[in-house]
Amino acid sequence: MSPAFQRVAFLGIGLIGSSLARAIRLQGLAGEIVVYDRSVAHAEQALALGVADRITEDAPSAVVGADLVIFAAPIGANEELAAAVGPHLAPGAIVSDVGSVKMAVIRDIGPHLPEGVHFVPAHPIAGTENSGPASGFAELFIGRWCIITPPPGTDEGAVERIAALWRAVGSDVELMEPGHHDRVLAITSHLPHLIAYTIVGTATDLESTLQQEVIKFSASGFRDFTRIASSDPVMWRDVFLNNREAVLDVLQRFSEDLTALQRAIRWGEGDQLFDLFSRTRAIRRSIIDAKQA
Amino acid sequence: MSPAFQRVAFLGIGLIGSSLARAIRLQGLAGEIVVYDRSVAHAEQALALGVADRITEDAPSAVVGADLVIFAAPIGANEELAAAVGPHLAPGAIVSDVGSVKMAVIRDIGPHLPEGVHFVPAHPIAGTENSGPASGFAELFIGRWCIITPPPGTDEGAVERIAALWRAVGSDVELMEPGHHDRVLAITSHLPHLIAYTIVGTATDLESTLQQEVIKFSASGFRDFTRIASSDPVMWRDVFLNNREAVLDVLQRFSEDLTALQRAIRWGEGDQLFDLFSRTRAIRRSIIDAKQA
Repeated sequence: MSPAFQRVAFLGIGLIGSSLARAIRLQGLAGEIVVYDRSVAHAEQALALGVADRITEDAPSAVVGADLVIFAAPIGANEELAAAVGPHLAPGAIVSDVGSVKMAVIRDIGPHLPEGVHFVPAHPIAGTENSGPASGFAELFIGRWCIITPPPGTDEGAVERIAALWRAVGSDVELMEPGHHDRVLAITSHLPHLIAYTIVGTATDLESTLQQEVIKFSASGFRDFTRIASSDPVMWRDVFLNNREAVLDVLQRFSEDLTALQRAIRWGEGDQLFDLFSRTRAIRRSIIDAKQA
Repeated sequence: MSPAFQRVAFLGIGLIGSSLARAIRLQGLAGEIVVYDRSVAHAEQALALGVADRITEDAPSAVVGADLVIFAAPIGANEELAAAVGPHLAPGAIVSDVGSVKMAVIRDIGPHLPEGVHFVPAHPIAGTENSGPASGFAELFIGRWCIITPPPGTDEGAVERIAALWRAVGSDVELMEPGHHDRVLAITSHLPHLIAYTIVGTATDLESTLQQEVIKFSASGFRDFTRIASSDPVMWRDVFLNNREAVLDVLQRFSEDLTALQRAIRWGEGDQLFDLFSRTRAIRRSIIDAKQA
């Protein structure tokens, strides 16, 4: 059987890109994997690890002759990359991505793609707190969701080929409207990361003896936040800058709720605290029931 | 060799109490374990599980003849328990506890103890999101810290016996001034729990279709918060009501930092986001180096 794609080009080869490249290779889904990364060191590492068959010094050279091109750099790099590679894309090629925000990706990449190239944005709900090509692994996507957000009018055959690719690497696929995706992820992912970065940042501002004790006794709750707050800084900067409205909206709700709790603590309103702490248990139960725990 | 204590009485037998009782039994540290719990069902469960040798219908009966009495109910119950058992404590007995706040425990229990009874407050930095006697296990404290916070003038021999008990069940012991303990834990434990409860609460207020999607895609960060936010509601209500000043102080710092981030997102100040997200990585590294990850 011939592979699903003759030549897959990755633009960016960090944790997610290199994991997908490994999984594609493991499943025999590509004839050849070509990698471009702005960091020459990362590209060379991908080559040495066997993640890439070939690396290129510029982005346009990577996409020439590719029937699948995957944008896997931090999303702030997309527009410049798309402008550079657009004129070099093969007719009929599929362009996809792995970004955590979808409206901005469509805004930045879409206009640079020539007629006859199909754009199928995708977002695998998977990751770790580690970064770089060496941190990737082929099993990352197994049993995880991949959300595909095709703009109206996207070629259905292209959508199906991307869906099949994600299923082949072990994921469950869900189709979603891009704006809705950004609102859901603002709650499930972007706000939690923002909160974790904030609380760990608050701790880094403490005087140093107290900070040493915070590290020593971090197992009491703080530790879980530090894992999230050690995710890639560039990736997350770009997420917040590119999903601004949805993030600010949920952040506003969160701040109101936190202020209400603060007031309940100040005035000793134990019933209000107990009511909230009881309600939140039910959500955990739902997550366990949905086998996402 | 005779056991370290002839009779150990537990007042409250939830996750922490039952774990400690199991560990004490496993290590042969007690001649007899007597349990009182306000919930008859929990006490009977402890008896059926073999965690208790004997259960009592009231707190005073549990402490009679005990050379070690451990308060292990939610800390809001301490004052009433201490007033009830105080007159029945054996001369020379040691009273200890496992509460997450130490100033309030000393305030609530201390005045009710007769002359000649030694009070050694303790706080094991260990736990899970589960509650009740069936959720306990003897290995919970292995490799974890236990902070002991004796008030000034506490008998040194009694402190050493409690320290030895915790070392025997696998913990590392640290002595700390009670007020300092409460400030450190406000940062490492109480604020993280408050934040987690808030963010999960914010999600429970969403319209129900969106809430279903939040559950479905919770693996993207939200999930980690729901685990923390499913901890025992009564225990945590009592923690916040009894460590009010320290919690409100760190909450104020956190809110200021969050507002600054909110502003940076609104105005597109990417450098400020990147700087914070880079700084927080260093703390994670310190926790890994301290073998607390």
